[in-house]
Amino acid sequence: MIHIGIYGYGNLGRGVEYAVSKAPDMELKAIFTRRDPATVHPHTNTPVYKAEDAPSMKDQIDVMILCGGSATDLPEMTPALGHLFNVVDSFDTHAHIPQHFAAVDKACKEAGTVGLISVGWDPGLFSLNRAYASSILPDGSYYTFWGKGVSQGHSDAIRRIPGVKDARQYTIPVEAALEAVRSGSAPELTTRQKHTRECFVVAEEGADLKAIENAIVTMPNYFDEYDTTVHFISEEELKRDHAGIPHGGFVIHSGKTGWNEENTHVIEYSLKLDSNPEFTSSVLTAYARAAYRLSQEGKNGAMTVLDIPPAYLSAKSGEQLRKELL
Amino acid sequence: MIHIGIYGYGNLGRGVEYAVSKAPDMELKAIFTRRDPATVHPHTNTPVYKAEDAPSMKDQIDVMILCGGSATDLPEMTPALGHLFNVVDSFDTHAHIPQHFAAVDKACKEAGTVGLISVGWDPGLFSLNRAYASSILPDGSYYTFWGKGVSQGHSDAIRRIPGVKDARQYTIPVEAALEAVRSGSAPELTTRQKHTRECFVVAEEGADLKAIENAIVTMPNYFDEYDTTVHFISEEELKRDHAGIPHGGFVIHSGKTGWNEENTHVIEYSLKLDSNPEFTSSVLTAYARAAYRLSQEGKNGAMTVLDIPPAYLSAKSGEQLRKELL
Repeated sequence: MIHIGIYGYGNLGRGVEYAVSKAPDMELKAIFTRRDPATVHPHTNTPVYKAEDAPSMKDQIDVMILCGGSATDLPEMTPALGHLFNVVDSFDTHAHIPQHFAAVDKACKEAGTVGLISVGWDPGLFSLNRAYASSILPDGSYYTFWGKGVSQGHSDAIRRIPGVKDARQYTIPVEAALEAVRSGSAPELTTRQKHTRECFVVAEEGADLKAIENAIVTMPNYFDEYDTTVHFISEEELKRDHAGIPHGGFVIHSGKTGWNEENTHVIEYSLKLDSNPEFTSSVLTAYARAAYRLSQEGKNGAMTVLDIPPAYLSAKSGEQLRKELL
Repeated sequence: MIHIGIYGYGNLGRGVEYAVSKAPDMELKAIFTRRDPATVHPHTNTPVYKAEDAPSMKDQIDVMILCGGSATDLPEMTPALGHLFNVVDSFDTHAHIPQHFAAVDKACKEAGTVGLISVGWDPGLFSLNRAYASSILPDGSYYTFWGKGVSQGHSDAIRRIPGVKDARQYTIPVEAALEAVRSGSAPELTTRQKHTRECFVVAEEGADLKAIENAIVTMPNYFDEYDTTVHFISEEELKRDHAGIPHGGFVIHSGKTGWNEENTHVIEYSLKLDSNPEFTSSVLTAYARAAYRLSQEGKNGAMTVLDIPPAYLSAKSGEQLRKELL
């Protein structure tokens, strides 16, 4: 059995708890929290400890799955925990991956542990598909579309506008852009041509709705480069119709072969997820299995999904995999 | 530079010649043929040798890409050449993969070489997607659909019917079945519900068309379990409208998460290929890079796509990949 620890018990941590329960070769040993453990109630009867107790359980946990946020938690947490445990995180700030990789690599090499970073679906499964497709058809180009799904960052940005009580923002890929890419025509697409944004906003009583709408659609970086629709709804409607955290998206690569580039090939990968955090947790858990196996082989240092043989994610043996699904 | 040899110069071999020409880190050193080399005219000015001359070039070739057929060539060819070279093949008889793996593993371990088998899209990229998806969402099920595309085996079967001069058979996935699977409902589907078969047949003059049609649609294993449509066309029409070798397909996995299985996730991978052999050749060539790197690391024995870290397929460094496409 692979002994798993969960570090951080929010949406992601709860999803990992579920995913580990479905893994025939894993046992969840401990949940660590920065809150008062007495206030944390897991679904299973896994013991909950204070975050600072983690070092004392070094010998009881094979892989620690880090369920913190990318903005402030993981840049500190992954190297610090990587000094003690094999770790897996879902660091998703694309621009800062090289520096995060370097910090985790240093910590894990010093400790002789495996640090598997940026595991999830983007970065993660989408990265895999960009890598496979562009390696196989180098004479081509790939496109990534996100949605339809809830963007937490954009929802938060709306909530910070005066007069806004709550909000939910959906990122939606433009169907015409998807079709153009699928046709293999390798179009040049602007930000506005690829995605639209749809916002459901609960305003405070008496708030200036026109002013809120204007503040949203002109917001730099978040909305100004997109076609954005704003709907004002009641708190009840928000709770009833927008409680889920769905997401998904598409990686589409088209490339040519033949001496006259006469043949076009289109590779498409897509996800349609009812729950973004639960799916990400499932990916983290499968890669925890890989981190354990690599550690058993004596590997150490930082790695990403691009470095992991696919068979290492499966509870099945190589022989079973070749027989059943190759 | 990675020095590549091509063993067998049919459609696949020609595709590899093109793909290697596009790889910045590869050089095509030799083409081997069982025909008279004087009758083989490559597109590039690569020297052509007799198949039996291959052993004498052992030290000049890093990876030999085997472009023979699965029925009779590869079961002999891959172990035999694996005794001399790192080899990559596209062995695609699913049921015989375990025994082919064992034979190649034995040969390559004795020789200290890498033998990467069953590389292509199914088996190959489709296998990867079945493995990733079922590892991440073990509480789920995957479906594979093929087409729309030309099935060489089914076309050949029609050509063997008396009175048939030429034929082309397309395998077509049933749209309603695709939609049912995409909905996440995990339907049970019969062979007939998943695919239809469409045949374009050139009959000999005076042939009994009714008899040919009946022979096709009732043919055991090939057609009897499918809804099959037969069109009789002229030789000119066949040449004009059915000269290409397109193919493709879909791997769709749906799975559930949540303590009440309340969330459904759908992972879909699809290929739309203008030229089946040229695309397969592109996959073989990317995996030849991986075979070379694994050999340089001292690895040996048989492997499949499930054993290969994705980054090994790319001409780019790990650092570039993390920066550009993670």
